[in-house]
Amino acid sequence: MPEPILFYDIPGKTAQQKAWSPNTWKTRYCLNIKGLPYKTVWVEYPDIEAVCRKIGAAATEQKADGSPYYTLPVIYDPNTKTTVSESAAIARYLDKTYPDTPRLIPYETDALHAAFNHAFRSILLSDLAKIMIPETAKCLLPRSEAYFRATREVIFGSKLEDISPPGPKRDEHMNSVKKGLHTFTQWLEADGTDKLFFLGDKIGYADVTVAGFIVWVRIILGADSKEWVDLKAADGGRWGKFMDAFEKYEAVDAGEDAVL
Amino acid sequence: MPEPILFYDIPGKTAQQKAWSPNTWKTRYCLNIKGLPYKTVWVEYPDIEAVCRKIGAAATEQKADGSPYYTLPVIYDPNTKTTVSESAAIARYLDKTYPDTPRLIPYETDALHAAFNHAFRSILLSDLAKIMIPETAKCLLPRSEAYFRATREVIFGSKLEDISPPGPKRDEHMNSVKKGLHTFTQWLEADGTDKLFFLGDKIGYADVTVAGFIVWVRIILGADSKEWVDLKAADGGRWGKFMDAFEKYEAVDAGEDAVL
Repeated sequence: MPEPILFYDIPGKTAQQKAWSPNTWKTRYCLNIKGLPYKTVWVEYPDIEAVCRKIGAAATEQKADGSPYYTLPVIYDPNTKTTVSESAAIARYLDKTYPDTPRLIPYETDALHAAFNHAFRSILLSDLAKIMIPETAKCLLPRSEAYFRATREVIFGSKLEDISPPGPKRDEHMNSVKKGLHTFTQWLEADGTDKLFFLGDKIGYADVTVAGFIVWVRIILGADSKEWVDLKAADGGRWGKFMDAFEKYEAVDAGEDAVL
Repeated sequence: MPEPILFYDIPGKTAQQKAWSPNTWKTRYCLNIKGLPYKTVWVEYPDIEAVCRKIGAAATEQKADGSPYYTLPVIYDPNTKTTVSESAAIARYLDKTYPDTPRLIPYETDALHAAFNHAFRSILLSDLAKIMIPETAKCLLPRSEAYFRATREVIFGSKLEDISPPGPKRDEHMNSVKKGLHTFTQWLEADGTDKLFFLGDKIGYADVTVAGFIVWVRIILGADSKEWVDLKAADGGRWGKFMDAFEKYEAVDAGEDAVL
């Protein structure tokens, strides 16, 4: 049995919403599907850069001023002494390093998975973020909330509360999210078969990507929210069935707080 | 041996540029890779709708006024008495109907191929079309040229000659095309291996899609054109090597003209 991988994630305020981030959920799903031992290290937003620098994690993007921008998820694997940033790179690393675990990006789908990632961002992200970012802010611990609010209000150029208030604006954003899911449904039915997953019968990284973003809605807005009930029912209940298949991969360990 | 499939394509003015259309090239590549017997039926632009209606080909899009819009490629397969419109649907039909020929969209890549198609359009199409549409107009027969010019000038809201004249504007569009190809290169190298094709070692429908659009440049602008030489050299010569692999699938039969 390998030593536990350290998995750096961003904590929510309550136990129920402790793991909430769509991007880190992708990695949590990967680790759970592969059945690899891991321990979560909880990092508050303002500490992400310092933690990443300390463990030698590469920046994933650039800030507007050209300086490096550090994001989670990141993993540190003590078995190979390797640090990996960014969820798709982590999935590829885990596939390669632990070949006896379920493969999430089969070789012949690797380049197509990269294409999927590009298409996914342009289809689902923008309007889902408008709904979810303001709701997420309320669920963070105080230091993270302040950081998150300040940085996201710059990105949106607006008070968070004004981006997608319940009512016609929110409805419009939800319709666009459902339209995005419907595009995925069309892809899943392109050859006339009715696949639950992108690879057909088994979960792959494209599915993990979609699930990471849908589970965000359930965790932040709640399983009783209008939005969650709506998404589950979309496309004849396909997305409810899809998320049911992920339930057994949703274990969240207690983990420990990052030490700076 | 099955009876020849009828393959509806749009003719260019000269023998050398007889088969030029990127969308129909996708189907020609598919038929040639699969080694299926076929006969080209040449249809001039103003006749596409009438021919499609006559053979029962479905429209692929809607015009601005909501009426059906008919496009090529279309195939009619006398062996199954089936008409299929649109290159991706044709590839899926051929994979299913002729399972002993090289499969271009393996089952587990079907939904990801649909995602690729979406991403491809957003990445390569717009600036490549700006360069190629005006140059293509000059290579069509008179009735097609008039139709093509009139319809495309409405789409671009500009005289064709003003869209991408040689000089700084053309250079900017070429740079954007090369940037698009570079994005594909990044996808092909996402897992750290250096794949020539999207599926890895063998040509799949994603490659056929890219090749159909690149060959357009060679056929219309010529193998000696600055643009073609540039594209072949892009990304360390990757795209030249890529197109070399398609050379053996570029046979064009004499075919016959459509009878209305």
